[in-house]
Amino acid sequence: MSKPVENTTQILAEGTYLRLVHRDGWDYAERSNARCAVIIVAVTPEDRLLLVEQFRVPVNAPAIEMPAGLVGDIHAEEPIELAAARELEEETGWRADRVRLLMQGPSSAGMSNEIIAFARASGLTRVGPGGGDDSEDIIVHEVPRTEAAAWLCQKAAEGYAIDPKLYAGLYFVDHDPDGTPAA
Amino acid sequence: MSKPVENTTQILAEGTYLRLVHRDGWDYAERSNARCAVIIVAVTPEDRLLLVEQFRVPVNAPAIEMPAGLVGDIHAEEPIELAAARELEEETGWRADRVRLLMQGPSSAGMSNEIIAFARASGLTRVGPGGGDDSEDIIVHEVPRTEAAAWLCQKAAEGYAIDPKLYAGLYFVDHDPDGTPAA
Repeated sequence: MSKPVENTTQILAEGTYLRLVHRDGWDYAERSNARCAVIIVAVTPEDRLLLVEQFRVPVNAPAIEMPAGLVGDIHAEEPIELAAARELEEETGWRADRVRLLMQGPSSAGMSNEIIAFARASGLTRVGPGGGDDSEDIIVHEVPRTEAAAWLCQKAAEGYAIDPKLYAGLYFVDHDPDGTPAA
Repeated sequence: MSKPVENTTQILAEGTYLRLVHRDGWDYAERSNARCAVIIVAVTPEDRLLLVEQFRVPVNAPAIEMPAGLVGDIHAEEPIELAAARELEEETGWRADRVRLLMQGPSSAGMSNEIIAFARASGLTRVGPGGGDDSEDIIVHEVPRTEAAAWLCQKAAEGYAIDPKLYAGLYFVDHDPDGTPAA
């Protein structure tokens, strides 16, 4: 399952949040400030899917995503589930009774070593307005669950960047990672 | 919908395939050799989903993904659908009668400007062994469609890296991006 690796890792550049690494003939990007990122699948008691909108500098466009955040950027040892609950509340104003890790894996294994986790939040209660932390400017969208996919297409047509992982999130609204109905 | 951008783009490093860019307070990675990447959702006439396995240097692990490849790395103007058909045949040995672009968007909008497209291939005929081009070493898996999610969980337990976008692909096996049944 594994290949011998030269292990001659070369740092081509060190930015503030990312470094560019060369190893074994490949270039890839590595986050310097976080272990991974977590995306939160969250449906309110009114059967509305929580989505967030924010301007994304790398793609120079407003983007629609599920609530998400970095793990380990504030507290190095923070468990993924706690980071997910914290980010959900910061970004959307909804607090979760339960958060369950669904799966994790590389977001783009050909160009970075970033790992993305998906977590499902349930037992939601509204406790604040959301909007993100001081550095963020996030608009919360609560979209009826059964209309979410059509709503995403409408937003794409309006010029928003739509993260393809949103559709992984729609899969997880209804299913666990092994294909059984969402527990 | 848009914010004023400083547009003082600074290239921190230029690798062979990637560059590290700083703009407006953000670091991000940019591919230097391709317009975007395309992931191909393909089910054989025997109702088996086509998946590929390859070692991925950035994550230092064998990874399970849907067939995929870069667009514009060989012919700058190549349409996404043609690139998808070419990559499907190179990687899996299956030729498609029809390829339809489903959606495209940023793979990780906080750390790169990479765009990932999803395309659905249909009318498949086996024409070769697959395995990729001279630079690739790809193992093809044909997994019964209804067992694909459970199979992915098994592979995750064995230590394979599982791209979360695989679950977007599972969504697209059954649905169009607007949530209607797959056309």
